[in-house]
Amino acid sequence: MAYLPEALTELIHRLSRLPGIGPRAAERLALALIERDPTEVSALALALTDAVARVGHCPQCGCLSQDGADCRVCADATRERGLICVVESPLDSVALEKGGGFHGLYHVLGGAISPLAGVLPEDLSIAALLERVAGGEVRELILATNASPEGEATALYIRQELDELRERRLARGAEAITLRVTRLARGLPSGSQLDYADAATLQSALDNRTEL
Amino acid sequence: MAYLPEALTELIHRLSRLPGIGPRAAERLALALIERDPTEVSALALALTDAVARVGHCPQCGCLSQDGADCRVCADATRERGLICVVESPLDSVALEKGGGFHGLYHVLGGAISPLAGVLPEDLSIAALLERVAGGEVRELILATNASPEGEATALYIRQELDELRERRLARGAEAITLRVTRLARGLPSGSQLDYADAATLQSALDNRTEL
Repeated sequence: MAYLPEALTELIHRLSRLPGIGPRAAERLALALIERDPTEVSALALALTDAVARVGHCPQCGCLSQDGADCRVCADATRERGLICVVESPLDSVALEKGGGFHGLYHVLGGAISPLAGVLPEDLSIAALLERVAGGEVRELILATNASPEGEATALYIRQELDELRERRLARGAEAITLRVTRLARGLPSGSQLDYADAATLQSALDNRTEL
Repeated sequence: MAYLPEALTELIHRLSRLPGIGPRAAERLALALIERDPTEVSALALALTDAVARVGHCPQCGCLSQDGADCRVCADATRERGLICVVESPLDSVALEKGGGFHGLYHVLGGAISPLAGVLPEDLSIAALLERVAGGEVRELILATNASPEGEATALYIRQELDELRERRLARGAEAITLRVTRLARGLPSGSQLDYADAATLQSALDNRTEL
């Protein structure tokens, strides 16, 4: 891009590293940006640095929060404290919140167990989850990990850890925990066509068929 | 987006105002950005403000240039000084430079005549173009305005102004200017299919047919 000023080439290079933005889109974006009102571009630059500096993870659940405070879900007194949805990443909770149908709290694991990628159970916030459960207030845990092999393995691992926790408590005569452990339903995505569904999805839709 | 931290909502809002980025893409982008290495995001923010502050227009031709200097084309001693390509915007010269087949200089008009949009001939850098021509060094002017009604009108207007300039010089006995005025060819775009071409394009392809 020798025909462009260096500062512009640098901007295009930076933009093209963003997810979903290829070199062509980055160029179009950069050229449009420099023709814009400079105050608007400064506001964008400020919003960028501000968001990166201020947005972090909620100390309670690991969801996105600002300035180290509790996230909006944990801070909301109307949410059901006994219902915890366990997700892999903060983005999963964002997706669930968009639906608006979940009224409990979250617990972000920070990934899924994947020995090949070097992610072991101790790399995830599973110990913190067990602690929350041991507190006794939790009555249902929805294991909403991804429907991938890693997500499945993580859900199964947590299920086993919970069983062991229960046994340890029984062994030392502590009060038994009554806890429901569920996972998200498997089946056809809403609005999808049968002939586009893959075999595994169709099989789980069959296995989990419900009364009409 | 009450489920997101405010700093993130602000970033999404700013991103969604960029051309070609809708609200969904802005959200995906913002969520990806805050999970990134903060130094990379700071570099992007810096590149943004840097580009807006430093990239401007070449004092010679109006193309994109840096720190108020001449653009790379004008500064290139190997370019043909007698050949000037007249374009509406700096982005048009970027498109032409990508091809790499043009070896002259540029002249950016800053738009096209459009009385409805309130753009009059005096709003464009036509006077500066006539001055460059009056200098006597220019031997060909390629009027590369857009193939739109406004672009056509602008090219015709410049053609008339050049004729008047010639007459005025003749009237006061000055040396005659020998100047070729051309425009870009009209025809089928490369790689296009005949049955997808519109009627006006097909007609000009017929009118301007060449010997094989």
